[in-house]
Amino acid sequence: MIITIRNAANSEARAQLMALLCRITGSQGPITTTHMNGREVVAIDSALINTEAHSLLKSQPAVEQTHSLKTPYQLASRAFQSENTSITIGSTNTCTPVTIGGINADPVIMAGPCAVENREQLITTAQAVKRAGAQVLRGGAFKPRTSPYQFQGLGIEGLHLLAEARNLTGLPVITEVMEPGMVEIVAQHADVLQIGTRNVQNFPLLLATGRNSKKLPVLLKRGLSSTLDEWLLAAEYIIAAGNPNVILCERGIRSYDPQTRNVLDLTCVPLLQQLTHLPIVVDPSHSTGRRELVPIMSRASIAAQAQGLIIEVHPDPDTALCDGKQSITPEQLEKIIHETTMIAHMIRGEARVA
Amino acid sequence: MIITIRNAANSEARAQLMALLCRITGSQGPITTTHMNGREVVAIDSALINTEAHSLLKSQPAVEQTHSLKTPYQLASRAFQSENTSITIGSTNTCTPVTIGGINADPVIMAGPCAVENREQLITTAQAVKRAGAQVLRGGAFKPRTSPYQFQGLGIEGLHLLAEARNLTGLPVITEVMEPGMVEIVAQHADVLQIGTRNVQNFPLLLATGRNSKKLPVLLKRGLSSTLDEWLLAAEYIIAAGNPNVILCERGIRSYDPQTRNVLDLTCVPLLQQLTHLPIVVDPSHSTGRRELVPIMSRASIAAQAQGLIIEVHPDPDTALCDGKQSITPEQLEKIIHETTMIAHMIRGEARVA
Amino acid sequence: MIITIRNAANSEARAQLMALLCRITGSQGPITTTHMNGREVVAIDSALINTEAHSLLKSQPAVEQTHSLKTPYQLASRAFQSENTSITIGSTNTCTPVTIGGINADPVIMAGPCAVENREQLITTAQAVKRAGAQVLRGGAFKPRTSPYQFQGLGIEGLHLLAEARNLTGLPVITEVMEPGMVEIVAQHADVLQIGTRNVQNFPLLLATGRNSKKLPVLLKRGLSSTLDEWLLAAEYIIAAGNPNVILCERGIRSYDPQTRNVLDLTCVPLLQQLTHLPIVVDPSHSTGRRELVPIMSRASIAAQAQGLIIEVHPDPDTALCDGKQSITPEQLEKIIHETTMIAHMIRGEARVA
Amino acid sequence: MIITIRNAANSEARAQLMALLCRITGSQGPITTTHMNGREVVAIDSALINTEAHSLLKSQPAVEQTHSLKTPYQLASRAFQSENTSITIGSTNTCTPVTIGGINADPVIMAGPCAVENREQLITTAQAVKRAGAQVLRGGAFKPRTSPYQFQGLGIEGLHLLAEARNLTGLPVITEVMEPGMVEIVAQHADVLQIGTRNVQNFPLLLATGRNSKKLPVLLKRGLSSTLDEWLLAAEYIIAAGNPNVILCERGIRSYDPQTRNVLDLTCVPLLQQLTHLPIVVDPSHSTGRRELVPIMSRASIAAQAQGLIIEVHPDPDTALCDGKQSITPEQLEKIIHETTMIAHMIRGEARVA
Repeated sequence: MIITIRNAANSEARAQLMALLCRITGSQGPITTTHMNGREVVAIDSALINTEAHSLLKSQPAVEQTHSLKTPYQLASRAFQSENTSITIGSTNTCTPVTIGGINADPVIMAGPCAVENREQLITTAQAVKRAGAQVLRGGAFKPRTSPYQFQGLGIEGLHLLAEARNLTGLPVITEVMEPGMVEIVAQHADVLQIGTRNVQNFPLLLATGRNSKKLPVLLKRGLSSTLDEWLLAAEYIIAAGNPNVILCERGIRSYDPQTRNVLDLTCVPLLQQLTHLPIVVDPSHSTGRRELVPIMSRASIAAQAQGLIIEVHPDPDTALCDGKQSITPEQLEKIIHETTMIAHMIRGEARVA
Repeated sequence: MIITIRNAANSEARAQLMALLCRITGSQGPITTTHMNGREVVAIDSALINTEAHSLLKSQPAVEQTHSLKTPYQLASRAFQSENTSITIGSTNTCTPVTIGGINADPVIMAGPCAVENREQLITTAQAVKRAGAQVLRGGAFKPRTSPYQFQGLGIEGLHLLAEARNLTGLPVITEVMEPGMVEIVAQHADVLQIGTRNVQNFPLLLATGRNSKKLPVLLKRGLSSTLDEWLLAAEYIIAAGNPNVILCERGIRSYDPQTRNVLDLTCVPLLQQLTHLPIVVDPSHSTGRRELVPIMSRASIAAQAQGLIIEVHPDPDTALCDGKQSITPEQLEKIIHETTMIAHMIRGEARVA
Repeated sequence: MIITIRNAANSEARAQLMALLCRITGSQGPITTTHMNGREVVAIDSALINTEAHSLLKSQPAVEQTHSLKTPYQLASRAFQSENTSITIGSTNTCTPVTIGGINADPVIMAGPCAVENREQLITTAQAVKRAGAQVLRGGAFKPRTSPYQFQGLGIEGLHLLAEARNLTGLPVITEVMEPGMVEIVAQHADVLQIGTRNVQNFPLLLATGRNSKKLPVLLKRGLSSTLDEWLLAAEYIIAAGNPNVILCERGIRSYDPQTRNVLDLTCVPLLQQLTHLPIVVDPSHSTGRRELVPIMSRASIAAQAQGLIIEVHPDPDTALCDGKQSITPEQLEKIIHETTMIAHMIRGEARVA
Repeated sequence: MIITIRNAANSEARAQLMALLCRITGSQGPITTTHMNGREVVAIDSALINTEAHSLLKSQPAVEQTHSLKTPYQLASRAFQSENTSITIGSTNTCTPVTIGGINADPVIMAGPCAVENREQLITTAQAVKRAGAQVLRGGAFKPRTSPYQFQGLGIEGLHLLAEARNLTGLPVITEVMEPGMVEIVAQHADVLQIGTRNVQNFPLLLATGRNSKKLPVLLKRGLSSTLDEWLLAAEYIIAAGNPNVILCERGIRSYDPQTRNVLDLTCVPLLQQLTHLPIVVDPSHSTGRRELVPIMSRASIAAQAQGLIIEVHPDPDTALCDGKQSITPEQLEKIIHETTMIAHMIRGEARVA
């Protein structure tokens, strides 16, 4: 159940409500609220609300409204917030911000290398993806690798290089964070915190990104075999921890055919848009694992109404330290941006057959 | 290994070759050959060819060329035939034929009801999908149903109704065949034989459709959990039985999330186009199981380079005897055809942003 | 809904009931009834039964009882028949019959080669598995193979060899049937008709085996990715066609890890035993695809309460024409039978720690 | 590649080796070594070893031997260590230790509530599972829950209760740790650190448990859809971080049928025993999700050669705060222990049919 708090509630009324919420949930407090689209809200387990508790809540002077939803996720639900969540990436202090999730916006393209390898590789790629039309620079400083013997990323040094690339290009930066203790450090250098596939149910990490002091947006990749409910509940962890700025990222799910690395589930894009107000982007690189499929599946993703793409680009894919087989060149990126923009316009009724 | 037979080979040389092939394969003959794109070919298990057999084969006067391929499928392989297979659906005697699989062709739209229910329902739908721009009429006379207690189709009566609808509209007709003994009967009334998901490895049925006396095209749906190799080997059964006119149809694969009926694997479209020369269409109805997703996934399918769509349309979806939840109206079909045509043009470089 | 027909119903009362059932189901008859455990029954789609139809049915003199079940399958349901179905395999005319599905019976072991290759291989194997303690001989005459270029079995010749092996050993014979038109021919030579994984939803084949003139038992393998409901509905097709003698066979399901050919779902054994009264056997050969795992998973299958095993045995596994990697020797079979018998005794409380 | 360090190597020789390893791997050190079965070893990515590096390594006075393995995991591989790893759980200071992974040992039974709910529930359950014959007490203090609104465990208070239960019963304690920053705190109270399914590729957590100051054993659950290679590489992270005491736990994998919560992959037990020397236990509670299947699948697990079981037990399953549907009573546990002991004896040849 979601409780909307009255804007004008005075501190006494608020304190009384918080005490009641502590009592109902058995929490020792403090209760975390989230500011979403102009409302201050808090959600609690519906199973804890009996008729008495409900009428107690409703009679609170600090309570604007209560919402009973049937979905397991609450704040992430389209049933609660019918308008799309619109999220601004980047701050005018350091870069050119871009907005994702609005209406009638062109798709947001996030591009860059799988891993930050060194200064030259990163800066070259950043400048090239900027020229190609990308609006956000991606690059991994901390790399989750299946084997402990694979390259694990440059770590803190990689963060510094990303910040430098942002300064040079004006592109806001997205990079992965792998553990709760690193969230604040990564947040000092990045504009979007990425949570990887393998961490989609790393609950302490979800909470830590939800609590990050800058309220930086979080890009939450789908797990290897997440159901939509599980994924949205992972988003709910972040939102309930105080951060409504969650971007979902479909990146393929595990299946039985070794021909592709994963199966890209594009149908989840319009399906999620029914279920949630959060923006949804697609990663055509990890989902296909093959460079030559990236342009085609980028087009299909935008035709399926994805609000953005996150694509691995490398100036020389064959020498990449990580995921070279699925990296494309900046030239290919430019063509993708051209084509997907046309499809986005067409969907909005702004293109015509020649 | 594939053997191409010399066009000018006389009957003696042919007989000598066939005898040799019987000896190598242990078959008692006759050996089936297939005419593909102007060549007469036959494939045999590479494991049966040692050096001696190979040089014997090469020295045959009836042999034009031998091809050693590494793929398990042979005749279906792009490595053997680099040009797209182009298939004509329908005959000018009874309808307006349409070609699928050529280059620079608009997507072929096959549409109609899941099941033929009665004369009025079928004729109304056929006329409506024709008006909406569809080129092929689909409709099930024999319905494979999970439960023995569900409606199993009108059977032969349904075939007659389909033939009548073809006469009235000029649309060629596709319908499913479920058992080898029915292939010739269905072939008398249909223009394309459909093999359903559950029969993708029904080998006697594959052979029977491969041998159908009219060499009608076969639309082969992907199995619930077919790998691409298994699917292409199923196509190989049909081609090796003498019929090169196979159309592949992606219709979603089984996965773990109950939110959608199946997961539509759109990435398989460009991947198959690397592996095979056969045309590929997508079924956005069965793959999503939800009416409101059909238009969006139709767009995405064409953006992924599918050469056609097969869509369930019903004049009154909510009263359909079968699969009503995923059926759309003729009006929605018209919009889908408009949008997918634009995307197809755009991919070919013929559209411009307004 | 299931209708039990009164034993003493005269032909007039029966005819009246059948006419009513035709009217309710829209069938033109004749209506098929099934004799199960001493009762004559017929099931129809519950959705067709409104209050009026129900009271009409109940007032029929030929109706003993009506049963409303919530499961999609009806006759296969444990809710309808609480006692285990007990099936006799083989006839005293030609072999030593064995019963499966009773209470307190030892597991029934079916063993033999994947494919019948030649007389010597089959007879040798048959005698060896008999000596090792197997009660049923398995062997494929018609082999469904993923590729059209693989060995497809000896066909009719294989059936004759199987019948000869039965004569020599007294072991009843199980073999696969792949198409409706072959059911009667296979039934002339076999004691159990096997339906393979790829045909679990080949509905015409299910019906044909259900109607086989000898009412031979049918061993129905689980599909590559069948749900339990789908599998039980496939069994329902056979039972509703008049043949209650269905044996279910778990043989592994498709999953994402290429390390094993399939994932053996042993939990389905006790789960099925809650849902259905049909006997359940396990195929540890196909499910693991690896010879060295067969003995271990045989033990686990019996510990999970399987009522039998079907195992591939070859006198010289490394030279087998088909599935040699998963075939074991007769010596290994003997050890498996010894161990699984002990586990079966232990489960029944007849064994003690030494 | 694995390098075994000479026992007698002096500090200069060691330092020289470590400097060389830093040079080869690009690490700034220090290099972590692991003591396994009497050997001190370190593994590095084989891709970094060219012929020159290899001969340099071999000529090092501190190097006893180098081992080139083809598996992606190295130290976890049976090819490296042929004897079973034997792990002692618990210390004589606080409890009655038990050994897992030896030869001819009875299965180790770990049992207790899903979640520690309060003092009485835990102590009652601990005493009951001890009486029933369990050797290790399980209980969750930190609970990873799909929804942020579900009960998340008692936290630190739960750890204190577990330690108290150990004092009262003498049973060593296993409990889950969810984030790197909590490893040392949990290690103060527990005897085995459990890593849950959703954290199988939480690499910082794997490293932290590998480095835990007491070298406590780690029970590593399989991920929802882990391949065996991925799972063993997760174990490799822990071992390579200095802790060879890893216990693998199969708990079911995600599949397509909603009838069971997960599919228990028992075949992985003997398969893993070929691939690795680590002990393997099975969780029949999470894998089935149904109480009535737990005893049967426990038997099947031991018949499949599992070296232990971890089972959810609750004094009153229907009132459990978490996973009550899959919890059994202490009485049922006692029966399971009796039966599985008999099967274990039988496998070792120590039981006879009555």
